[in-house]
Amino acid sequence: MDIAQRIKALRSCMEKNGINMYYIPSDDFHNSEYVSDYFKYREYISGFDGSAGTVIVTMEEAGLWTDGRYFIQAEKQLEGSGIKLYKSGTEGVIEIKDYIKENLGKGEVLGFDGRTVQTAWAEEIEESLNITGAKINSRLDLAGETWKERPCIAPQPVMLLDTCYAGEPRESKIARIREYMERNGADYHIITTLDDIAWILNIRGNDIHCSPVVLSYLVISMEEVMLFAYKEAFNKDTEEALCKAGVLIKDYNDIYYYTKNLNKSSSILFDKNTVNYAISSNIPKETKIINRANPSVLWKAIKNNTETSNIKKAHIKDGVAVTKFIYWIKKNTGKVPMSELSVIDKIESIRSRGENYIGPSFDTIAGFGSHGAIVHYSATPSSDVPVEPDNLLLVDTGGHYLEGTTDITRTILIGNKATEEQKKYYTAVLRGNLNLCDAHFLYGCSGVSLDYIARKPLWDMGCDYNHGTGHGTGYLLNVHEGPNSFRFRILPCPDANAVFEEGMVTSDEPGMYIEGQYGIRLENLLLCVKREKTAYGQFMGFEHLTLVPFDKDLINTALMDPKEVKLLNNYHKKVFETISPYLDSEEAEWLKDACAPL
Amino acid sequence: MDIAQRIKALRSCMEKNGINMYYIPSDDFHNSEYVSDYFKYREYISGFDGSAGTVIVTMEEAGLWTDGRYFIQAEKQLEGSGIKLYKSGTEGVIEIKDYIKENLGKGEVLGFDGRTVQTAWAEEIEESLNITGAKINSRLDLAGETWKERPCIAPQPVMLLDTCYAGEPRESKIARIREYMERNGADYHIITTLDDIAWILNIRGNDIHCSPVVLSYLVISMEEVMLFAYKEAFNKDTEEALCKAGVLIKDYNDIYYYTKNLNKSSSILFDKNTVNYAISSNIPKETKIINRANPSVLWKAIKNNTETSNIKKAHIKDGVAVTKFIYWIKKNTGKVPMSELSVIDKIESIRSRGENYIGPSFDTIAGFGSHGAIVHYSATPSSDVPVEPDNLLLVDTGGHYLEGTTDITRTILIGNKATEEQKKYYTAVLRGNLNLCDAHFLYGCSGVSLDYIARKPLWDMGCDYNHGTGHGTGYLLNVHEGPNSFRFRILPCPDANAVFEEGMVTSDEPGMYIEGQYGIRLENLLLCVKREKTAYGQFMGFEHLTLVPFDKDLINTALMDPKEVKLLNNYHKKVFETISPYLDSEEAEWLKDACAPL
Repeated sequence: MDIAQRIKALRSCMEKNGINMYYIPSDDFHNSEYVSDYFKYREYISGFDGSAGTVIVTMEEAGLWTDGRYFIQAEKQLEGSGIKLYKSGTEGVIEIKDYIKENLGKGEVLGFDGRTVQTAWAEEIEESLNITGAKINSRLDLAGETWKERPCIAPQPVMLLDTCYAGEPRESKIARIREYMERNGADYHIITTLDDIAWILNIRGNDIHCSPVVLSYLVISMEEVMLFAYKEAFNKDTEEALCKAGVLIKDYNDIYYYTKNLNKSSSILFDKNTVNYAISSNIPKETKIINRANPSVLWKAIKNNTETSNIKKAHIKDGVAVTKFIYWIKKNTGKVPMSELSVIDKIESIRSRGENYIGPSFDTIAGFGSHGAIVHYSATPSSDVPVEPDNLLLVDTGGHYLEGTTDITRTILIGNKATEEQKKYYTAVLRGNLNLCDAHFLYGCSGVSLDYIARKPLWDMGCDYNHGTGHGTGYLLNVHEGPNSFRFRILPCPDANAVFEEGMVTSDEPGMYIEGQYGIRLENLLLCVKREKTAYGQFMGFEHLTLVPFDKDLINTALMDPKEVKLLNNYHKKVFETISPYLDSEEAEWLKDACAPL
Repeated sequence: MDIAQRIKALRSCMEKNGINMYYIPSDDFHNSEYVSDYFKYREYISGFDGSAGTVIVTMEEAGLWTDGRYFIQAEKQLEGSGIKLYKSGTEGVIEIKDYIKENLGKGEVLGFDGRTVQTAWAEEIEESLNITGAKINSRLDLAGETWKERPCIAPQPVMLLDTCYAGEPRESKIARIREYMERNGADYHIITTLDDIAWILNIRGNDIHCSPVVLSYLVISMEEVMLFAYKEAFNKDTEEALCKAGVLIKDYNDIYYYTKNLNKSSSILFDKNTVNYAISSNIPKETKIINRANPSVLWKAIKNNTETSNIKKAHIKDGVAVTKFIYWIKKNTGKVPMSELSVIDKIESIRSRGENYIGPSFDTIAGFGSHGAIVHYSATPSSDVPVEPDNLLLVDTGGHYLEGTTDITRTILIGNKATEEQKKYYTAVLRGNLNLCDAHFLYGCSGVSLDYIARKPLWDMGCDYNHGTGHGTGYLLNVHEGPNSFRFRILPCPDANAVFEEGMVTSDEPGMYIEGQYGIRLENLLLCVKREKTAYGQFMGFEHLTLVPFDKDLINTALMDPKEVKLLNNYHKKVFETISPYLDSEEAEWLKDACAPL
């Protein structure tokens, strides 16, 4: 079936169900950033396979909304499909919510699968449709009805994460949550975000590509802990360990029956911004809803001492791998044939030699020349280009280890001829990266208060990068994790703008992208640490976790102030001292030079 | 009656009314920052006359909560009163809401005057008391019953602000609000904040000391504009002009009858964070409440072209006055006897010569030596000290003109011996002030994103000032005005963290306070302006509105980088060029020297 046929099939199914408009987001049932194939109906129905996009189909029209990262790709992939591209965030382009409101008349019905949308979204849409007299039907899985070749959910084995890695037993985490529930008068806490569940129970899986999570829902009450999951994913040991902590394993889909039958006089704590509407609309109306972020979101972000010391070990292993990789690139440029895809294989082959390596924390981005300017570029056999002198190679890559998750970006000069412009921008990006890590601030700052530091060198030139400066990173979990981040715009949900706490891990990744030519991004993970406590309060700062040299061939020292040069030299000194013992003599010799003070 | 007798009288009145705990905030009925004498029951009942504080009285206890600015003053003023001081924000000190919750048993009653508390506060308290089984009674004006010598409300004459000052006729503002109401499905909009009402109707009064507002409530519907106010404050011309714009004047207290009788099927837009609980709890339960900030809060903050060009004129007049004042101080130090109170008189006498001067925008703070370290110091005959060599004089002062409101702080070396420490801190504060004004940022930043710039020089030394870096300022209105500000902590209410828009006026006032020795604060008002628009977006920046020299005797140039020296020299050049034409030759000669490049 081509796209047009798929949409036709959907429309006839809509007609049968009395639906005037059908809404297809990219989400799974857990508000995950990345989803497994089973949930990729939006891709099936539109042909567009970017990570973010929403399709709306009416009897007359079909539209896809996506953001700036994917305009070019979406235009290509939608060609001939009859689906109209709506460029979100562009002036004059209608927002999805307004489109829905304006295109549904009185008595007409918006259909969607309530499991794929967040409660807060559905409630807002329902309220706005109430004004115009339209309705919603949230109980329609038209993907299930029209997607014949739909992939299966194939649950992967669940493993237990030992306390020597997690730092805190699951029993202790459950007890903390129950204390929190008691303080807040909650009888039940429903958790559907997969990284929170994995963190609370100290389990890991492989149910989403590059995200070691377990497809499941969790409900905690004062008496019970119910894990709704695929039972075949658990072996006897895993089940026993969970059972010992009081965790009962129920069928994945039983969450819907379970929540329907919750005690009507109970108080239920859950986050309407993450829990899906099928669950929340199931809950008896008489219960009291306490709508707030899962406490585990913040607790998970604050790494404990065991996690922190493990993460440092992971970053040494990863630093060794990426340093070896850069050395290999620099040594073999112009001698050994290389392409974007081959360097991706190369880094994986080096990294996989590391002890306790689990796998990549996301698909490595290797963008050469103009591809480096496409922020979410993903090399494919048809887009792949040779990596050869003279241009920049942007590599954004990371790994999962039992000791934690890494995420690093380096921009490497291929050849030896860098333009003055390339150096100017590389130096500006580097200054932003170094100065942000060097921030010395009073407790109480969120990333909003500090983002300016990273952007200043570019803003001073009237330039910018169209993405956040940094995201939180999980411990052997999602590479993108809230609630800490660096961004200059305040998020509307107050919980999302977390104050920095000791133990948080956040990426520091300013960039600069020259369309059609090259891209620069420099990313280190930073650990938030306490500095001195004075009469004025507790001061805080960051430490670089990532230990890989920057490319001195791309730095124009004349554009740095002496303090910045010192920051770079200190960082390189630490890189050399920490990484060189794990290198062979030729590599170490090269690193010595790469880290020599400017 | 002494304090103990007043509390005794209150308790007997509480008993009569079946009240176990009575809550006395500092507020008037309009959520004003400063209040007129009629509303100062908290001061009457406790003897504490700081601007912020809350008293709670039970049958056994009486407590006053206030913040760090007032700990010393409150301790003194509460001595012997039997009222316990609760130092808000101090570790281990119970918060007011928790105190209420924990000290009221099942069936007990918290009493307060619903007109003096915000709706959001009352609803939160009521909900938390529901859990413990306690109740509220919001209809008790025990101030009215127990305060025999209570001052009267003495409404002052209302004046019309001509469009040549306001820049937009009241008819146009009302029309804009009605458009906003229509877009948001509101039939009524209730506005109780006095500065919003004055801005919307282009009226000014004098009902609060230093705040040219009119004691009133405003309700706008699609058909009517009802101003609830003291009729005797309006003369014929004023009434006619308002009538022409469709504004009907009703009795001040009629708002409570009016809101009780609103159409049950209507939608009512108001801000639960400002509208008092007596009004909101009056509204029929069947109506639909749209709880959000008044649109006028943001519109009022974005000064129009007429206002902006007027404000610049006001700042020239004010700059001339303050420059003359500093010259006078510097010339006469050690020759003419001076004290904190006499320099306050001096500045008022110079400023009052300015054309269209209305009065001070707040009571001038003149803190000499150790008094400068008390952030909200207010000199009284008993605290007054001579101003004589050698120490620092901190002067924070401002005026209302028909052309707008000013607010400036300068720290002046009295004598000629500054210590190295004084220079170090003065220079750090100055660098913060200059660098913040020099910020070049992408549209979308709020003050949270920029506050770090002003604090960095102090934070780098482990120091800080325990107040915000800046507040919005009204146009011939409140000297403190939202929603723009500079602060590093994000406010929980999203509307309060406004993105900077062209035309906003915000103070830039870092400081440094050495307890027992001296205080430094340097404050300019900044105008937000558009800079270049590039491929990356609209860049924004600030311009200094305030034009008064900094004290070069307190600057250590060695601690500034060359860019900062240039910023200072450029600022001083502009001060000299703009202000000197209005000075006599001796003053101009002095200013030339004071503004000569470093």
